[in-house]
Amino acid sequence: MSADAEVLARWNRCGWYGLTGLEVLSADETGSRFRMTVADGHLQAYGTAHGGSLAGLLDAAMALAAIARMDPDEGCATIEMKINFTTPVPPGEVTAEGRVLTLGRRIVVASAEATLPGGRVAAVSMGTFTRFREEG
Amino acid sequence: MSADAEVLARWNRCGWYGLTGLEVLSADETGSRFRMTVADGHLQAYGTAHGGSLAGLLDAAMALAAIARMDPDEGCATIEMKINFTTPVPPGEVTAEGRVLTLGRRIVVASAEATLPGGRVAAVSMGTFTRFREEG
Amino acid sequence: MSADAEVLARWNRCGWYGLTGLEVLSADETGSRFRMTVADGHLQAYGTAHGGSLAGLLDAAMALAAIARMDPDEGCATIEMKINFTTPVPPGEVTAEGRVLTLGRRIVVASAEATLPGGRVAAVSMGTFTRFREEG
Amino acid sequence: MSADAEVLARWNRCGWYGLTGLEVLSADETGSRFRMTVADGHLQAYGTAHGGSLAGLLDAAMALAAIARMDPDEGCATIEMKINFTTPVPPGEVTAEGRVLTLGRRIVVASAEATLPGGRVAAVSMGTFTRFREEG
Repeated sequence: MSADAEVLARWNRCGWYGLTGLEVLSADETGSRFRMTVADGHLQAYGTAHGGSLAGLLDAAMALAAIARMDPDEGCATIEMKINFTTPVPPGEVTAEGRVLTLGRRIVVASAEATLPGGRVAAVSMGTFTRFREEG
Repeated sequence: MSADAEVLARWNRCGWYGLTGLEVLSADETGSRFRMTVADGHLQAYGTAHGGSLAGLLDAAMALAAIARMDPDEGCATIEMKINFTTPVPPGEVTAEGRVLTLGRRIVVASAEATLPGGRVAAVSMGTFTRFREEG
Repeated sequence: MSADAEVLARWNRCGWYGLTGLEVLSADETGSRFRMTVADGHLQAYGTAHGGSLAGLLDAAMALAAIARMDPDEGCATIEMKINFTTPVPPGEVTAEGRVLTLGRRIVVASAEATLPGGRVAAVSMGTFTRFREEG
Repeated sequence: MSADAEVLARWNRCGWYGLTGLEVLSADETGSRFRMTVADGHLQAYGTAHGGSLAGLLDAAMALAAIARMDPDEGCATIEMKINFTTPVPPGEVTAEGRVLTLGRRIVVASAEATLPGGRVAAVSMGTFTRFREEG
């Protein structure tokens, strides 16, 4: 199963993705792939990416990995997430991959990893999502 | 002890705070107080604030609560954080308070809470921070 | 509201509480209070309490704080928890207090804190619980 | 690199492993493998394994995966961990595997997964560990 193009386009049009330069490239049963370009607007006072920008990237990567495994009329909401920041992220591109760890009828557990261009792991996350039916 | 005005101003000038409409109001030994205005750019595909925007708010609230308890030449970095999203956040103002739970020589543990105007808790977090000396 | 004596007694009789010397002292709308005696069986290879024993204490403190806020025929299950270990715990008594942060119809978020006899914080936690009806 | 037999034996002799029927089978550069037998002493009031017992299993699996990647005179301590409980665990055997996600000079991030005999995932975790030199 693969999230259809319209679902991905809908997410790529949402406000947060536009504001933070976040883009979902693909999402299917194997997981999701994202790209984000870190610019001046992402930086904290020390000159590297603020945790919020990376949390947004990994939350999105986990959520879309979950959505790709659910029915087309289902959505999901993040109950909670935990993120480890393992390397400071300078301006430039960062990529991320999300995957589902366990898919329950009500609860999905997912993980994600953000990577710098050279392959270094920038951040890792694990999160809990609740499934819901979108009203037609 | 209280973070001096210049430290707060430095954070309020950083890119991420500008991009996401985030503002530190105060930070002293009792904790930090923040305000963020959720606008179109904060929204996910379902029309409420994306987790990344709230994670950024709570990460900032915890970090500044920690900074207010450290020496003036010290900074801190988020090792990891966990956040629970307890209520969808619509466009408008959200506030947050951060506080230090334990202050170690190397590691600080902090928590934060984001609140909607009517007093409802929107998100709660707990995080781990490492202290470092800034080079002069 | 207060968890009645029979509910507390039922937990104090369960296997895990017996095995790890864990005891719920009280649980009411303000939270729960626990005591655990750390003995040789709690220790890891470095001679202080293993993380599992403290995780058990704080999971229990959060769960009973939640149960005290729910209907008598409701139980709860831990969806996930996060724990920070802030001080090594030597053999002897450790106490803990749990409290509810947000009480939803389906999801409860709680926190807990474990303290050494001198007042030092040994560990802090935050967790997510799901409510369910026990079959009669 | 592989944790030598004496290191594994030392852990298998510690109090917590004995109390909770926890055993490290192997630990090398690919990760750690554990086994735990859930008995009456592991159960909470609903008749399945208490979260503390599974938290102990996964904390151990992550810690030994980290130790297998460090120098022989190094130890590690859990700064914090997060665990998702995905399936109730009945009495009987449960296995776990731990692996290192990022190995820093001071901080190690690891994950672990506990599995029931039929292959179902019982719990997943992510944790942060600090490295230290043991005194000779």
